[in-house]
Amino acid sequence: MSEEGLVSLVGSGPGDPELMTRKAYRLLEECDVVLHDKLPGPDILEAIPADKREDVGKRARGEWTPQEYTNARLVEHARAGKHVVRLKGGDPFVFGRGGEEMEHLAANEIPFEVVPGLSSTIAGPGTIGIPVTHRDHVSSVTLVTGHEDPTKAERAVDWEALAATGGTIVVVMGVGKLPSYSRILLDAGMAPSTPIAFTERATWPDERVVTATLDTAVAVRDDREIEPPAVIVIGEVAARDDTVMAFLRSRRVLEGHD
Amino acid sequence: MSEEGLVSLVGSGPGDPELMTRKAYRLLEECDVVLHDKLPGPDILEAIPADKREDVGKRARGEWTPQEYTNARLVEHARAGKHVVRLKGGDPFVFGRGGEEMEHLAANEIPFEVVPGLSSTIAGPGTIGIPVTHRDHVSSVTLVTGHEDPTKAERAVDWEALAATGGTIVVVMGVGKLPSYSRILLDAGMAPSTPIAFTERATWPDERVVTATLDTAVAVRDDREIEPPAVIVIGEVAARDDTVMAFLRSRRVLEGHD
Repeated sequence: MSEEGLVSLVGSGPGDPELMTRKAYRLLEECDVVLHDKLPGPDILEAIPADKREDVGKRARGEWTPQEYTNARLVEHARAGKHVVRLKGGDPFVFGRGGEEMEHLAANEIPFEVVPGLSSTIAGPGTIGIPVTHRDHVSSVTLVTGHEDPTKAERAVDWEALAATGGTIVVVMGVGKLPSYSRILLDAGMAPSTPIAFTERATWPDERVVTATLDTAVAVRDDREIEPPAVIVIGEVAARDDTVMAFLRSRRVLEGHD
Repeated sequence: MSEEGLVSLVGSGPGDPELMTRKAYRLLEECDVVLHDKLPGPDILEAIPADKREDVGKRARGEWTPQEYTNARLVEHARAGKHVVRLKGGDPFVFGRGGEEMEHLAANEIPFEVVPGLSSTIAGPGTIGIPVTHRDHVSSVTLVTGHEDPTKAERAVDWEALAATGGTIVVVMGVGKLPSYSRILLDAGMAPSTPIAFTERATWPDERVVTATLDTAVAVRDDREIEPPAVIVIGEVAARDDTVMAFLRSRRVLEGHD
């Protein structure tokens, strides 16, 4: 067919449908098909007509090659002249593999556009009163993946360097390896009293925030049964909990927090 | 009066009105007054009725104490029972002083909420095809302010540590001090060939992207007359320019780029 398809790589934000961009919302209405996994969250996914949704997070018969499969499906639909929304939780380019999908589309000469979404790393803590930067405390924030084994020789993340930046550290996919990298951060000289906040499912109906310090983080994680995917904020800003969040809670502007 | 005011600290995103969240848009419709400066950009500001807008970025008679003045106005309006939107460019908590305003509101027992916006540090590069993280290249991204003099003794930003992280570095307010911190990054061992992208007014009608490398950055800045506020991306991801952005340009999905 002569009509050319289009792929929109769209971030859905942290989960609250009202925290999607207006453009994301419009594209979900206008497009022919939505390729998604579970990360956008139930409230956003359920609002999309079922006959328009295609779940690429799971495959039949236990075959898990999602990235290659997703890449192929994007090209297939676009070549059939469809407008495809590739919907991703958070932002497509903050640990979202949007870069890989974009390159695959470019290599296959498929027209595409990028529609950023609120990253859970910033918006998650933000909605509950934790500013990732603060003029009085920190001049930088590093967003980092914590899924890698920090003790292996060829590691991509230099946790000692992160400790030395003096800025806020926001870790995604970092619940499991917390014992390793929190140890490295302490050994690198970060204060044991450095505040930590675990934010779980921020903006979802069952959101939860649990606070700790660098030296108690592992015990608190285990005791409070923090589960992935949680966003972990390490740094002075996480202690805003004691002032601002207490106030937010007391005024019931925010509810349901731990 | 008995009715209680409310302050919504709202991020407006990088400038394209469609890249505001649906919640930001709704609050702008519903609120009584909008306190703003110039950073949200003309397209967003002009859509707000003039009698609802209050520019707190400038004051009469050359008095520039905007933060204290803004803080006071927020409390004043809320105490009069109004619903105030404090509209900020990008995200309120990414170098947006939202943390300070939040604390001031909490201290004055004014009910408030935080509505994150797309940060220009991530969404600006993102819309033009630069992913701040990429599984094949980097496992972290640091957002940092470049306005501080990096040669002073008591500096808040440790540029050597940032170089050592191996991750992407995104600098805001960093056009002026580029000669100092690019020198430090080079001396700390970052490759002279490290790609750099200057993104100016991303998503605005007159957006521009100029690329360079760490060792040519200052010359390119001067030659191409890069002006604040530009977002500067330092790292391998900035070289996506050569592949993906060339493709975007050729397909005219994006236009007006340099």
